[in-house]
Amino acid sequence: MDDLIRRVVQEQMPETLGMLREYCSKPSVAAKGEGIEEAAGLVRQFFEDLGASPKILRLEGAHPVVYAEFPGASQKTLLFYNHYDVQPPEPLEEWASPPFELVERDGRLFARGVADNKGDLVSRLAAIKALLTTHGQLPCRVKFLVEGEEEIGSVSFPRYIHEYRDLFMADACIWEYGERDHKERFHIVAGVKGICYVQLEIQNLRTDLHSSLGAILEGAPMRLVWALAGLKGQDGRINVPGFYDRVKKPGDAELEAAKAIPFDEEEIKQYVGARSFIGGKQGFDALYDLLFSPTCTICGLEGGYTGPGSKTVLPRKAMAKVDFRLVPDQDPEEIADLLRRHLDAQGFSDITVTLMGGEKAYRTDLRHPFVRLVMDVAREVTGREVVLYPNSAGTGPMHPVGMALGVPIVSIGCGYWDSRVHAPNEHIRRKDLEETILLMARLIERFAV
Amino acid sequence: MDDLIRRVVQEQMPETLGMLREYCSKPSVAAKGEGIEEAAGLVRQFFEDLGASPKILRLEGAHPVVYAEFPGASQKTLLFYNHYDVQPPEPLEEWASPPFELVERDGRLFARGVADNKGDLVSRLAAIKALLTTHGQLPCRVKFLVEGEEEIGSVSFPRYIHEYRDLFMADACIWEYGERDHKERFHIVAGVKGICYVQLEIQNLRTDLHSSLGAILEGAPMRLVWALAGLKGQDGRINVPGFYDRVKKPGDAELEAAKAIPFDEEEIKQYVGARSFIGGKQGFDALYDLLFSPTCTICGLEGGYTGPGSKTVLPRKAMAKVDFRLVPDQDPEEIADLLRRHLDAQGFSDITVTLMGGEKAYRTDLRHPFVRLVMDVAREVTGREVVLYPNSAGTGPMHPVGMALGVPIVSIGCGYWDSRVHAPNEHIRRKDLEETILLMARLIERFAV
Repeated sequence: MDDLIRRVVQEQMPETLGMLREYCSKPSVAAKGEGIEEAAGLVRQFFEDLGASPKILRLEGAHPVVYAEFPGASQKTLLFYNHYDVQPPEPLEEWASPPFELVERDGRLFARGVADNKGDLVSRLAAIKALLTTHGQLPCRVKFLVEGEEEIGSVSFPRYIHEYRDLFMADACIWEYGERDHKERFHIVAGVKGICYVQLEIQNLRTDLHSSLGAILEGAPMRLVWALAGLKGQDGRINVPGFYDRVKKPGDAELEAAKAIPFDEEEIKQYVGARSFIGGKQGFDALYDLLFSPTCTICGLEGGYTGPGSKTVLPRKAMAKVDFRLVPDQDPEEIADLLRRHLDAQGFSDITVTLMGGEKAYRTDLRHPFVRLVMDVAREVTGREVVLYPNSAGTGPMHPVGMALGVPIVSIGCGYWDSRVHAPNEHIRRKDLEETILLMARLIERFAV
Repeated sequence: MDDLIRRVVQEQMPETLGMLREYCSKPSVAAKGEGIEEAAGLVRQFFEDLGASPKILRLEGAHPVVYAEFPGASQKTLLFYNHYDVQPPEPLEEWASPPFELVERDGRLFARGVADNKGDLVSRLAAIKALLTTHGQLPCRVKFLVEGEEEIGSVSFPRYIHEYRDLFMADACIWEYGERDHKERFHIVAGVKGICYVQLEIQNLRTDLHSSLGAILEGAPMRLVWALAGLKGQDGRINVPGFYDRVKKPGDAELEAAKAIPFDEEEIKQYVGARSFIGGKQGFDALYDLLFSPTCTICGLEGGYTGPGSKTVLPRKAMAKVDFRLVPDQDPEEIADLLRRHLDAQGFSDITVTLMGGEKAYRTDLRHPFVRLVMDVAREVTGREVVLYPNSAGTGPMHPVGMALGVPIVSIGCGYWDSRVHAPNEHIRRKDLEETILLMARLIERFAV
C-alpha cells in the first residue's frame, strides 16, 4: 500500500476523531425522532467541508436522506450506503459513560452509534480526505447515500430509491458496516436478511382491576403471553402457518461460502453466556440457521405493574414488540398478514398487530468480480484472513438498492466482534477505524482501474 | 337509630373529611417503603386526639403497627383491623387529579387509598368520636390494630400477632373494608382468599444482543413467555402439579350463603368490558370460582425495549410478577415450592422464583352470632338489602388474627362497586362514608349489650 496515503491517514487521525466526536454527539434516535435534522445537517456539513455539493433529499413524512457526489478521474462510480440514525441508548444505567459523548478508553471509542454506523461513514470520509490531500482528486466517481431510518426498518427508503434512482446510479456499492471477529479475521458481507417488525397490543378490560377478579376475568398480559408462546416452539420452529412457504434455500455459491466460514461456536456461547443454541443445534446446522433461517424474537414486553415490590393488579393492557428476520423470498407484509390470520385462528382476535417496519432480504451474486476485488483489497490492507459471508444475520435496505440499481453490494466497516451494536457501551477500536480508512482509500484506488 | 348520634355524625362531617384529607395526603406506599413512618405517626395522632394512649409497635425489618385501646362500659371487646399502607398509584397519567390529594367531585372523594383502606379507618374513628361526644364514653372496649404491610402481603403481620397476641385479645373483630354493589346492596364479608405472590426473573445472556442473533440464541422474554403460558390453560385450570391437592371444598353453610348471593354477571361483564368469564363459565359456576377457586394472574410483565418505535434487540433479561389467590387449606410457601418444581420439570431452571408475599385463606364460621349481629345492624342502619359473602375474592391477613385470637371476623366498610381499588381514580362516595360511620357507631352500641 501507498506509504504516502498511510502517513496522511495517520496525520489526519486527530481531525478524524474530532469529526467522529461531533457526529456521535447528535443523538439521532430514529425510533424517537430525536435529533434527526441536526444529524442530517451535520452530515451535509461534512461533505461540504470535503468540497462536495451535498443535497438533503426530502419526502413527506420521512427522515431526510443526505446525498453527495465527488467527481473522479475515471468514469466508474462507487456508491456508499450509510445511515446517520442510531438505536435508542436505553438502558441508560448500563452505560459506563454518557451514550452521546465519544469517550476513548484503552484504545476503544465508546458512543451510541459509533459502530452502527457513524464510525463507518467517518472512515469513508477520512479516506476521501486522504486521497484528495494526496492526489488532489479522486481516481473514480464516488457517491454517498446517507439515510435516517435504518434503525426503524428504512420505512421510507424504498420511496427515496424510487424517486432518485437516476441520481444514485453506480457500478458497485459498498454497504454500511463490517467487523473483525474474535480471531481478528476480517468479514465481508454480501447480503442481508429481511425483517418484519410488529407490535402486538391487547386491551381486553375497561380498566385495571383488583387481581382477585382474576378468578373469573383474564388479564391482558396472560392472553398476550399465550399468543406469544404459540408463535414459536422451543426448537425454534415458527408456528405461523405459511411462514416458510416462500423460503428459498441457499444456492451452491452461498452454501460453498458458508461452509468456508469458521464458526467458533463454543467461543460464541461462552461470550454471550448461553449454554446452547436454539434447538440444541451445533456446528454447520447452527451456522445455517444464523445465515439462512428466518427468526422470531420478542424484542420488548410490557404489561401491568413492573415497579419494586408487589402490586396485586389485573392489568387491562399489554404490549409486545416482535421481530421476524426474513430470508429470500419472504415478504414482510405477507408475514404480517399470516401472523394476523394465525392469531385469529388461535382465538386472539383481541390482539392488534401493527407492522412497524418491513424489509426484504437480499443477496449479491457471489460470482461478481466486485466481490473478489473487495476480498483482495481487504487481504492486502489487513494482511489477515478474510471471511466472506453470503449474507448477514442482520437486516438492511439492500433489497431496494440492489434491485433498483442492479449493482453488486458488499459490506465492510470498522466494527469488531465485541462492538455491542444495539446494546449499552457500543464501541469500536481506534486501530480498526484507522485500518478501515486505509482499506477504503485503497479500495477506491483499485476500483477506479 | 339514635337521632342524636345521627346529628352528631353529620355535624362532625367537615372535621371527618379534614381528617381523611390529611390521611390521604401521606403516600404510605408499602411496595416502595414510601411515607410509612409519616402515615403511622399520623394514625397515632388520630388516636391521641380521641383521648386514647396509642402505641407504635415495632419489629425489626417491619413497617410499624399502630395499636390503640379505648375503655368502655361493658367488658366486651371489639377489635378493629385496618391498614395505613396503600397500593402504588401508577399509572399516574390516568388519574384525573393527583393521587395523594383528596379531591371531591360530584359527591365522590378521590385519592389513592381512600377506599382501601383509609376511608374505613376514618369511619371507625368518626363513629367513636360521635359516641364519645354523645355519651362521654364507649359502651364497650374497643381496640385498634392498624398495620402497614397489607398491600405487600402483610409479610410481618403474623410476627406481630405472635408477639402481641395478649394485647389484641377480643371477642370479635371487624375487618378493614366493605362495599355496596351496583344495586346498592350492602356487602358483609366473613373470610378472605390467601395469596402467593411471586416474581419470576430470567437472565440467560450476558448482555443484550442484536436481535439477528435470535436465529441461534433464545432471548429472555421468549423463555419467560413459554414458562408463563404453561402455568395456566385458557380454561383457567392451573397446570402446576399438586396445586389443587389441599383445596378444601366449601361447606354447607358457605355454599348456602353463596347461593343467596345475587350475581349480576352481565352487568359485571359490561362494567369491565369483558365478553366472557374465564372458561366461558356462567351463573353460579363463575360465582363459585370467584369465591372458592384459586387463581393465577400475571400482575406485571417486563423485558427488552418498550419505548416508542422499534428496537431490534435480543433482550438478556425479563421479569414477571404473578399472584396466585389461594383457598383453604393451600399454603403459599408450598405453592411457591410446587411452582419451582414445575418450572424445573418444564426445563425452566434458568428462571428464578422469589416469594414476595404469602398469606393463607380464612373463613369465619357463618353460624357464629356475631355474623348475625352485623347483618342485623347493617339492615337496620342502611334500610337496604344485605348480602353475606362467606369470603372475599381478595386477600387479607385474617388467618393469623382468626387463628391466634379465636374470634369471628366480619368485614364491612365504606367502599362501593366502582371504587376502583388498586386502580387509577380510586374513590368513595361521601354518602357511603357517612353511612359507614353511623353503622359503626350502632354496631358498637349493639355489640356492647
